Amino acid sequence: MTNEISFFQNPDGTREEILEATFYALRQHGYADLTISKIGDEFGKSQSLIYHHYDNKDELLVDLLDYMLEQVENQVPLPNQSPEEYIEIIVDEIFGTSSNSDVEFSQAVIELRAQAAHDDDYNRLFRRSDDFIRKQIARVIRAGVDAGAFDVEDPSQTAALFHTVLVGIQAERITSDEETIDDVRAEFRRYVENCLLSE
Amino acid sequence: MTNEISFFQNPDGTREEILEATFYALRQHGYADLTISKIGDEFGKSQSLIYHHYDNKDELLVDLLDYMLEQVENQVPLPNQSPEEYIEIIVDEIFGTSSNSDVEFSQAVIELRAQAAHDDDYNRLFRRSDDFIRKQIARVIRAGVDAGAFDVEDPSQTAALFHTVLVGIQAERITSDEETIDDVRAEFRRYVENCLLSE
Repeated sequence: MTNEISFFQNPDGTREEILEATFYALRQHGYADLTISKIGDEFGKSQSLIYHHYDNKDELLVDLLDYMLEQVENQVPLPNQSPEEYIEIIVDEIFGTSSNSDVEFSQAVIELRAQAAHDDDYNRLFRRSDDFIRKQIARVIRAGVDAGAFDVEDPSQTAALFHTVLVGIQAERITSDEETIDDVRAEFRRYVENCLLSE
Repeated sequence: MTNEISFFQNPDGTREEILEATFYALRQHGYADLTISKIGDEFGKSQSLIYHHYDNKDELLVDLLDYMLEQVENQVPLPNQSPEEYIEIIVDEIFGTSSNSDVEFSQAVIELRAQAAHDDDYNRLFRRSDDFIRKQIARVIRAGVDAGAFDVEDPSQTAALFHTVLVGIQAERITSDEETIDDVRAEFRRYVENCLLSE
């Protein structure tokens, strides 16, 4: 399997193997055309093993989403660096890379986010994850304000814009070329310098 | 029909009537569960009339997307106001309102944007529309720089961030409460004041 997603490099047990197969089947066929049978083709083991763990396609996809959002949540760095260094790391995470695995991850997340309009389970997971990420970013900014490194009045507001840019980039990665993403990144750095860092 | 989308208030001819029915059927059932039969239920006229205009569901949805993106493109104001006034209008358009029609429009656009990962027609339309909107915003910013109202080095970069925030808000509207959107808007206004307007 080429273009492996890093968090699936060492699938740990049957659940992760099924989730990995689901991720690649989703990427290949899209949500609308995805079936347990197509996931079984990627899985390479008995399809009945999938039904042993999941009743249907959406139960499996919601578990995949839960798993993927945990990966995103774990990307938020823990506080063992200076606030300026954290913000650099967060900005890098927001913009990711143009590698196939980052683009495929973004595409899958946006495809599942669109389902949140029709399905409470997807909606609930995205609300939980979005809130978590916003609060983590706000915490880093607040630490920077306390340390005198950042000049921000309301860290929650600043974190909210960071999160919107994260989601916007995920959606734009589907169609935008790297030059455009680089433009956004350059302007966002200008915003960080002028609106976050103390003079 | 309640919660009417403004651009469908006076559907002009059969094409717009079919597109309106498609929009509401998409909102109700989602892309994956949408069928010509369900569109026919919304349409209220003979289903064969739909097949007279479109060969299949995706041909119809691509035409709907084309039509919707034209509406977005037409929202970009023409230059008959001061640069500061334009930017205010653009910011208002980016954040829209929490009305059902704005939320439903955003949901439909994100659902179709997710299809761009699998389908060249959707991909091509979004690329065209995204480029158009970015260029229009850049033009407004450039006019502001020329008039001495804005202090921006690269209007294209600034426009690229504006567009990312537009797309991010469309995606976040599916799950975020109004308070969060208000936080993003407040921070984005802070960015405009500190990073665009001349001192």
